[in-house]
Amino acid sequence: MNYTRIYDISMPITLDMPVYKGKPEKKPSIIVESDYSTGNFYESRISMNLHTGTHLDRTLHMVKDGNTIENLSLDRVITPCKVLDLTTAIECISKSNLMKKDIQEGDFLLLKTRNSFEDILEENFIYLDKSGAEYLASKKIKGVGIDALGIERSQPNHETHLQLMKEDIQILEGLRLQDIEEGEYFLFAAPINIAGAEAAPVRAVLLQ
Amino acid sequence: MNYTRIYDISMPITLDMPVYKGKPEKKPSIIVESDYSTGNFYESRISMNLHTGTHLDRTLHMVKDGNTIENLSLDRVITPCKVLDLTTAIECISKSNLMKKDIQEGDFLLLKTRNSFEDILEENFIYLDKSGAEYLASKKIKGVGIDALGIERSQPNHETHLQLMKEDIQILEGLRLQDIEEGEYFLFAAPINIAGAEAAPVRAVLLQ
Ligand SMILES: [Zn+2]
Ligand SMILES: [Zn+2]
Repeated sequence: MNYTRIYDISMPITLDMPVYKGKPEKKPSIIVESDYSTGNFYESRISMNLHTGTHLDRTLHMVKDGNTIENLSLDRVITPCKVLDLTTAIECISKSNLMKKDIQEGDFLLLKTRNSFEDILEENFIYLDKSGAEYLASKKIKGVGIDALGIERSQPNHETHLQLMKEDIQILEGLRLQDIEEGEYFLFAAPINIAGAEAAPVRAVLLQ
Repeated sequence: MNYTRIYDISMPITLDMPVYKGKPEKKPSIIVESDYSTGNFYESRISMNLHTGTHLDRTLHMVKDGNTIENLSLDRVITPCKVLDLTTAIECISKSNLMKKDIQEGDFLLLKTRNSFEDILEENFIYLDKSGAEYLASKKIKGVGIDALGIERSQPNHETHLQLMKEDIQILEGLRLQDIEEGEYFLFAAPINIAGAEAAPVRAVLLQ
């Protein structure tokens, strides 16, 4: 393995982290089960929606009888990737924004948007719209990640997810891309292996 | 990145997975919050002790005011590593077992034991004893992982953890090493970034 730097592109999980649309039920809770006031070790437990923070979606999230975390082949998420600078896009990422970029079959793309400089907004985050998702599906990319808590926002029938999932394109949400320049990297985004789950937390990192 | 194979060395998280000493409170629970019987998406939540399955311990687990997950430098767990075949050891791994191996300062060692062939026993698993931990601490290794649910078992005052933690040696527990031969690999074992936590789940993989 040759690399010069490790970039952490994951959100820290904290009690007051931003969550999708600010919904309170999406905030994690951490329960301390033992600490030094009562014993000689410290142990805690987490309770968390699987779409909180940086995570990978599987098709079960939006498709009945869809695939789940334990069936993911790890070479889909441990892979070369390209970070695309889309910080000039307003409102959403559309086909027209993506057509200006070099996108090849099999690419794993990370979409760096204005969200990276606005602290991943809970409400009005930049998302990938249907035309953008259709374009990426037609290119047969391997996966796509975004620096928003959702890859889509308030679209009827989850059309972005469904366009991508039709081609089994992996979807990474909740990335932090502030410090990452456009270019090529190596991505590690293997999720916690929660059998049967429609999504799971990921500690996503890039190697340069 | 050049590699020929990805090995998943993590335990799947399931409702009936083996847990430390078989304690019921260490089993995870998964709560389905929405599914296709009531809507058009599927979403679930996990509740889990942070020492369930494959995870990294930080010193707060055994040391008051110890360090926590968010302060971990990722180059400690994204690193070359050596898998040591210790499957001939009975009961525990001691200094005498480790002295036969080539161990250098800065190594990250994964200890493959009989547990790998006995399905990570909940009760009588092979562990690293105090003499073994002292030896690894004297060698100033970077980290150590084991294919048991704990790196120690029923020792007074957690002496194995404390010997290792004194030298800030990272501890990975709950690995699956059945299919891994002794040798050199590249380890990815970055934990989910749960701020303030004494441990966190890891999707650990080896690249060959
Ligand atoms: Zn999601
Ligand atoms: Zn532990």
